[in-house]
Amino acid sequence: MSAEVICVGTELLLGDILNSNTQFLGRQLADLGIPHYFQTVVGDNPERIKQAIKIASDRASLLIFTGGLGPTPDDLTTETIASFFETPLEERPELIADIKEKFAQRKRTMSENNRKQALMPKGASILPNPMGSASGMIWQPRPNLTVMTFPGVPAELHRMWQETAVPFLKQEGWGANVILSRTLRFWGIGESDLAEKVSDYFDSTNPTVAPYASKGEVRLRVSAHAESKEGAIALINPIQQRIQEIAGLDYFGCDDDTLPRVTGKLLLDTKQTVAVAESCTGGGLGAMLTSVSGSSGYFRGGIVAYDNEVKQQLLGVKAESLNQEGAVSGTVAKEMALGAKKQLHSDWGLSITGIAGPTGGTAEKPVGLIYLGIATPEGEADQVELRLGQQRLRDTIRHISACHALDQLRRKLSA
Amino acid sequence: MSAEVICVGTELLLGDILNSNTQFLGRQLADLGIPHYFQTVVGDNPERIKQAIKIASDRASLLIFTGGLGPTPDDLTTETIASFFETPLEERPELIADIKEKFAQRKRTMSENNRKQALMPKGASILPNPMGSASGMIWQPRPNLTVMTFPGVPAELHRMWQETAVPFLKQEGWGANVILSRTLRFWGIGESDLAEKVSDYFDSTNPTVAPYASKGEVRLRVSAHAESKEGAIALINPIQQRIQEIAGLDYFGCDDDTLPRVTGKLLLDTKQTVAVAESCTGGGLGAMLTSVSGSSGYFRGGIVAYDNEVKQQLLGVKAESLNQEGAVSGTVAKEMALGAKKQLHSDWGLSITGIAGPTGGTAEKPVGLIYLGIATPEGEADQVELRLGQQRLRDTIRHISACHALDQLRRKLSA
Repeated sequence: MSAEVICVGTELLLGDILNSNTQFLGRQLADLGIPHYFQTVVGDNPERIKQAIKIASDRASLLIFTGGLGPTPDDLTTETIASFFETPLEERPELIADIKEKFAQRKRTMSENNRKQALMPKGASILPNPMGSASGMIWQPRPNLTVMTFPGVPAELHRMWQETAVPFLKQEGWGANVILSRTLRFWGIGESDLAEKVSDYFDSTNPTVAPYASKGEVRLRVSAHAESKEGAIALINPIQQRIQEIAGLDYFGCDDDTLPRVTGKLLLDTKQTVAVAESCTGGGLGAMLTSVSGSSGYFRGGIVAYDNEVKQQLLGVKAESLNQEGAVSGTVAKEMALGAKKQLHSDWGLSITGIAGPTGGTAEKPVGLIYLGIATPEGEADQVELRLGQQRLRDTIRHISACHALDQLRRKLSA
Repeated sequence: MSAEVICVGTELLLGDILNSNTQFLGRQLADLGIPHYFQTVVGDNPERIKQAIKIASDRASLLIFTGGLGPTPDDLTTETIASFFETPLEERPELIADIKEKFAQRKRTMSENNRKQALMPKGASILPNPMGSASGMIWQPRPNLTVMTFPGVPAELHRMWQETAVPFLKQEGWGANVILSRTLRFWGIGESDLAEKVSDYFDSTNPTVAPYASKGEVRLRVSAHAESKEGAIALINPIQQRIQEIAGLDYFGCDDDTLPRVTGKLLLDTKQTVAVAESCTGGGLGAMLTSVSGSSGYFRGGIVAYDNEVKQQLLGVKAESLNQEGAVSGTVAKEMALGAKKQLHSDWGLSITGIAGPTGGTAEKPVGLIYLGIATPEGEADQVELRLGQQRLRDTIRHISACHALDQLRRKLSA
């Protein structure tokens, strides 16, 4: 009893559009606890669509198609599915009426092309599209096989999925077993180091524990299957607790907890504020902090001191520090953090100065060398040196630097 | 002689991450003129990965894998491919040395787990990863079949593809006919409006012209096929020129020309500087300007005035304006822009104040209401009102606002 997703569209193969439908359907199937092992993308070609149907229908009992339901000659999904299962198409008068009605609402007349969108295989139920002219179908072409079709437009797919497909699947007994996943999130530890610490859990089969890493963050996905959501949670919770104990402060949250959200909540809970001083990130740290709605409760603002003159005039960085240590130095980072705290009257000051590349590096100060400054409510300042490597992209270096700065504050607030 | 893409990762099936690698590879293969009919996503399961290899290797002669090259036990791509083709793995000393060196650069020690990343099937060539520890391979496991593996991290895939895979494929005679694409980029005009203006070109078959839109930007992809690159360019250039004439200032550049890059170049060419004052974007405009290497040549810095007190103290916004018109108003936007120009001694000042949502909107000032301010070298200030709609996400509203601010400056500099 597994599902497969088949996305139809030459534009997907050509990379003209980003395929977000597989992500949407993947999450939805996981939430319903419906196993899903393969996704296929195929172009607008009947023979190849049939190959994909053959392979998927031999492996799975629910086939979910997206795309190819439009009115133009290259929209072939419905007729190809019907042909594969040797079933004739028939025009549905209720769909003709529905399409005409939708055109009338937009003060337009249905074109002859759209008549095609009213054709369905004999025996298929209509999967209504409240937003557009591309209705889908729910069809059982043979025992133990259900086919669903959706348009490729994400908003239409989402609504049709929620309004019709989910109730249908639940009623048919799909997803009686629940698969629940929780993502544990870590900062300040590498994937392999964390993997070594928690390697005992990788052999666990229920829940399973799997690591992945992206732009400096490491995640562990803990997935449990059980008869109920509560049962799955009861399997996940003790594992999560033990992993948190092992990881200590390297663990910062789970699922939707981002570094700015977690750090912001710590500030809000303790009624403290923060201001930033940024050089190489150019405003990225402030943008990250304010990605959270409600950040005005603890974020005062910041000074982007890209030019050294600005560092001196607006942040009070000493000419001496700039001359002797250079703009990319721990001393300047500390003075910037203190300057932000002072100028913006905040409890904490956070600063970043560094070399984001790809140019500007030297043997002594290579691309990827970053200094963070943290000014404390007591008016003291610390610095942290990061070496992010010379091969990373400018944007990645800037992103990781801003995350590290937030992480430093999070650790101090959690201590 | 066709290619297939196989993406390995349970996190893709679960929808934990959006799969952008298929789009990248789709475009790249199209640009090289390599036919590509199927994409498959499969989880971290050796038996299912083998099924995918069996199916794809029966259909195609180039298999491109992404993902599953990490150091942890669920990273199975290399060993499963080797096992499918019944070939032993061997440890490559040069990869061990490379991984150790990368860890050393970051002042860390290679963990025992990473040793796995140095294993390659006997006979495979290394596809070097200059950015991380997950090297790929180029391997001909049997006649008329080439296998390439890449890590799932997009930045690493992109670089490895460009630096090693493309030269290899060209040398091997893949894609003898050239398909060349150029993307024309537009800001300040909607997709349907632009489509109407240039609709004559949509019927063209060589080059083809196809529109798409993303987060406020509209693009036209012009693709030509010819026997040589020069031939393709000769087909594209006249079409591009006519479209540019039709679009006027709504056209801002092509391919890698981003709004910050184009605007920055205009500043650099005229030896002018800019400073920013940001409220709802929290630093995002500065971050966008400094996404360009070399932006220190024209970007002085900025003030993130998230709190109204900061707007007054650091930017000189009048209490009267804040009280009478509110922080989200054209008057405050103009004062912020003038304040940035004055405080940071720049030629131009750019400001953004608005309601990014999801909370904070009122009937009079809804979510998505944004004011931009532009202070000119002459010391005058203009304002622009944007209504970006209440249904858009906070991050999208912030991104579009920052782009619009840059676009305003670009138009003034181009006038």
